[in-house]
Amino acid sequence: MSLTVVGSIAFDSVRTPFGERERMLGGSAVHFALAASFFTEVRVVGPVGDDFGDDEIAVLSERGVITDDIEHVEGGQTFFWQGHYEHDMNIAHTDDTQLNVFADFEPKLSAESREAEMLFLGNIQPDLQRDVRAKSAASYAGLDSMNLWIETTKNSLVAAIGEIDCLLLNDAELRMLTGEPNLARAARSAMELGPSVIVAKRGEYGAALFTEEGFFAIPGLPLEDVRDPTGAGDSFAGGFLGYLDEARSAGRTDDVTLRIAMAYGSVMASFNVEDFGTERVRRLTEGEIADRVLDFKRLTHFDEPSN
Amino acid sequence: MSLTVVGSIAFDSVRTPFGERERMLGGSAVHFALAASFFTEVRVVGPVGDDFGDDEIAVLSERGVITDDIEHVEGGQTFFWQGHYEHDMNIAHTDDTQLNVFADFEPKLSAESREAEMLFLGNIQPDLQRDVRAKSAASYAGLDSMNLWIETTKNSLVAAIGEIDCLLLNDAELRMLTGEPNLARAARSAMELGPSVIVAKRGEYGAALFTEEGFFAIPGLPLEDVRDPTGAGDSFAGGFLGYLDEARSAGRTDDVTLRIAMAYGSVMASFNVEDFGTERVRRLTEGEIADRVLDFKRLTHFDEPSN
Repeated sequence: MSLTVVGSIAFDSVRTPFGERERMLGGSAVHFALAASFFTEVRVVGPVGDDFGDDEIAVLSERGVITDDIEHVEGGQTFFWQGHYEHDMNIAHTDDTQLNVFADFEPKLSAESREAEMLFLGNIQPDLQRDVRAKSAASYAGLDSMNLWIETTKNSLVAAIGEIDCLLLNDAELRMLTGEPNLARAARSAMELGPSVIVAKRGEYGAALFTEEGFFAIPGLPLEDVRDPTGAGDSFAGGFLGYLDEARSAGRTDDVTLRIAMAYGSVMASFNVEDFGTERVRRLTEGEIADRVLDFKRLTHFDEPSN
Repeated sequence: MSLTVVGSIAFDSVRTPFGERERMLGGSAVHFALAASFFTEVRVVGPVGDDFGDDEIAVLSERGVITDDIEHVEGGQTFFWQGHYEHDMNIAHTDDTQLNVFADFEPKLSAESREAEMLFLGNIQPDLQRDVRAKSAASYAGLDSMNLWIETTKNSLVAAIGEIDCLLLNDAELRMLTGEPNLARAARSAMELGPSVIVAKRGEYGAALFTEEGFFAIPGLPLEDVRDPTGAGDSFAGGFLGYLDEARSAGRTDDVTLRIAMAYGSVMASFNVEDFGTERVRRLTEGEIADRVLDFKRLTHFDEPSN
């Protein structure tokens, strides 16, 4: 089992009602990789600048993430995002975005990263996603995107979606992509573009899974302490695809497996938001993950009515 | 077992992307009563005008709802609401509200309606809710409200909430009432006002239950055909409290029972939205309800991870 993720590596400055942090390690590929690292071998592909040093690499390598394919652009600066959250932590307000080395990013895949069995295309320009997909030998690929690409490069995005197996989007993005206000119809419409698995991420409301066989929904855990929601969606994707890669290497690919993967995705997202940036996931243990999967099971369990 | 509901009885004119209807039977007490009628004996208390006739009464009495406490105001007109839904069917847009006989409503409870074991205070002015609660001998009372009363008569509403057992609100209303943006904290804060059970209704995302023992969440069923969401929250409350009344009369009041009640509430709401007004619930069968409870169980079930 092995998983390559291509996406942003970033410094994030974030302010929430519970505090603020300057230039934390972040980015979609980072949050994804840390979450997936609990399940499989992960390689990160993405560009960084001169401001990215050993401390940042250590955060990834301490979790066993392979950082050989992180591209250091001499003289460049790492992608930077600054944002804040009001009391409604479901909505991120962007205050500053500096693409820096990410502006001219041309993904370079080493032989090892091409040969990973699973590929995750983080939220980057869809033509880059297609380029990476074409170079990769992965037998299974997931893709995330965002409203910007739906609005500006929809044809490319639709083509990219046609070349992958699992699409992960926010439910609003899924509706926007398909023009279908009804989520179940939107998911079916997205499936017609190619992927056999559609995951609708719903923030604090959890996530929904649509496959050819049926659907599944898992609510969010009602956490009292949400400190920083940044990276929750990427952590979900990391837990989901990380578990799926582990399961596929054991020959399990059915809907039962996908449902457990949804639980692991939810678990990893729920930990991610408990502290700023990568702080909570860095100190996370396998025992805590196992306990929280059971929390999710209890959260949704009800007995048969005894009528 | 017996349940009295006090609330609006209305004519609704509704337009959605799937059609429109003029002057359908509606109102919180009507949607609640029809849903609850599958579980217990229901009495409706509320005012109607000269335009309310045998056809409307028949819709209720055909489901066994007792209509003796519906007050006919001579020379008056029944409460009228007109609204529409855009493609995002989560948001109701009000085009016209005519309070009519509802403007001077002073609830009158017959001996039988006072003696019901359970009471549901539908969304009406909080001082009226308190008046009804004081007159009722019910051993268990639920209450719904809305943003209008939180904004204009919050002290009365807080007093009313202090006198009931189960509070049912939309999650945004629960946050507004308590000033807590975090739902889990908002629920705990609402519990400190008096009720031991808090239900956060979340529209298409389902509903969450908070008790002293813990929490439970049930997602919405991803229905492809949602025709008219009007009354979904009241149908939820009717299924929830209707089942709870039935269970309480059998001595079951624990969290296991509350979770099953959440499933029945969700089931009744999911049927309500499949057609305009009361149309779907009127032709609903007990077999369909039993089947859909199992749909909800399947929707949320995942196996233990086998690590």
